[in-house]
Amino acid sequence: MTYCLAASLRDGMIFVSDSRTNAGVDQLSTFSKMHTFCGDGQRFFTLLSSGNLATTQAVVSQLTRDLRDNAKTSLNKLSSMAEVAEYVGDTSRDIQSKHKDSDKGSSFSPEASFILGGQIQGKPQRLYLVYPEGNFVHTTPRTPFLQIGETKYGKPILDRIISYETDLETAARCGIVSVDSTMRSNATVGPPIEVLIYYSDAQCVGHRLLFEEDSPYLSNVRSAWQESLNRAFDELPKLNVEQAGIRLVDG
Amino acid sequence: MTYCLAASLRDGMIFVSDSRTNAGVDQLSTFSKMHTFCGDGQRFFTLLSSGNLATTQAVVSQLTRDLRDNAKTSLNKLSSMAEVAEYVGDTSRDIQSKHKDSDKGSSFSPEASFILGGQIQGKPQRLYLVYPEGNFVHTTPRTPFLQIGETKYGKPILDRIISYETDLETAARCGIVSVDSTMRSNATVGPPIEVLIYYSDAQCVGHRLLFEEDSPYLSNVRSAWQESLNRAFDELPKLNVEQAGIRLVDG
Repeated sequence: MTYCLAASLRDGMIFVSDSRTNAGVDQLSTFSKMHTFCGDGQRFFTLLSSGNLATTQAVVSQLTRDLRDNAKTSLNKLSSMAEVAEYVGDTSRDIQSKHKDSDKGSSFSPEASFILGGQIQGKPQRLYLVYPEGNFVHTTPRTPFLQIGETKYGKPILDRIISYETDLETAARCGIVSVDSTMRSNATVGPPIEVLIYYSDAQCVGHRLLFEEDSPYLSNVRSAWQESLNRAFDELPKLNVEQAGIRLVDG
Repeated sequence: MTYCLAASLRDGMIFVSDSRTNAGVDQLSTFSKMHTFCGDGQRFFTLLSSGNLATTQAVVSQLTRDLRDNAKTSLNKLSSMAEVAEYVGDTSRDIQSKHKDSDKGSSFSPEASFILGGQIQGKPQRLYLVYPEGNFVHTTPRTPFLQIGETKYGKPILDRIISYETDLETAARCGIVSVDSTMRSNATVGPPIEVLIYYSDAQCVGHRLLFEEDSPYLSNVRSAWQESLNRAFDELPKLNVEQAGIRLVDG
């Protein structure tokens, strides 16, 4: 599987992704799921992908080809982020439709989802989740983050830490903890972890970082987090079983 | 949906469950998913249930009837926990099979899963997950907890805190945090939270507690946990974007 997340915040955007793909337990591989398009310096786009690897690679190739060939529709020509989201959705749907009627039965699905974040000069940054059907939703200050793939394990920490006002370093750190927790609980999400920080109105990559399984920072975060959680847990009010709630007698 | 968990530890067992059932967004109700059978004082069983409410209620009714009617097979007559697990699985499968061929199409499923924990005097305590198919697995000291229902949100904290050596109060507290986190991230899991503590070789309920949404203990745990997590998070090594991992240049 996959786990990717992104947040659109006051100061910019953060993107975090794992790198494991699998098609069955004996076919584990490492692929980057983070794709950046910087275009002409006046626009910046990042795509995180989840789902069928053939589909996601084909979508990224198509976007790259359209840019290179200066096609009628390309990331450099569209004038709003909503149009870009539609273009990504249409491309994804077209590619999926070629394989939908494969006779491999229900075990095969060409579906893919994308998180698309970006900014076109002079316009606000936008962050979208593009569904396999090609339609999409965007974040708002009240709901500033999006996730795709194996999203549940890592959601509680995002719910607790990330708000629209959160600074980018904190949000990126929270994303790393979220992905790392997921890796611990689910074998289909794996390192390296990629992180991208985008500063509003920069129209280019702020920082792009890659953490291997044995990276010192990841090890430090892991052990510090485990230690802090244990301590936080120890500090919780003890469950006084004589008083805690309502005692029930039950047959 | 539902979220229930249980752990079989050195000193005993803990069981924690939420109480929300839903069949569509406009049909939310509160039902206890924790059922205790104390039998003749020489045996103790707790059942946590997830899945189709008609099935889980029918299974509990059948178990209760068999006990009352002194049936050939009942919780009082079986001589090992494995036989009890098989009895629960068989009962569940029989009830499901009556409704399997309903023509409501794929949106309907009579499936149900159970966590069964218990002890028969003179024998070791056992904790099982009984699948909808009626087969089952048990915990071991290396894998001491089981979950059913909406399990993913609350798994990371269990993975980090609960081991076979964990004392029962801590494990119960961890279960409460796990369920409470899940309620925060998923609307289909809801209060009250029920907790049962079983002390090894007691063959009766140790403590059974119920926490309503507004219970003082739950409020205290929630705010303390949020505060501690924020602090734990603040204490994590900051992400120094100039040094952290490997910087990538990407087109």
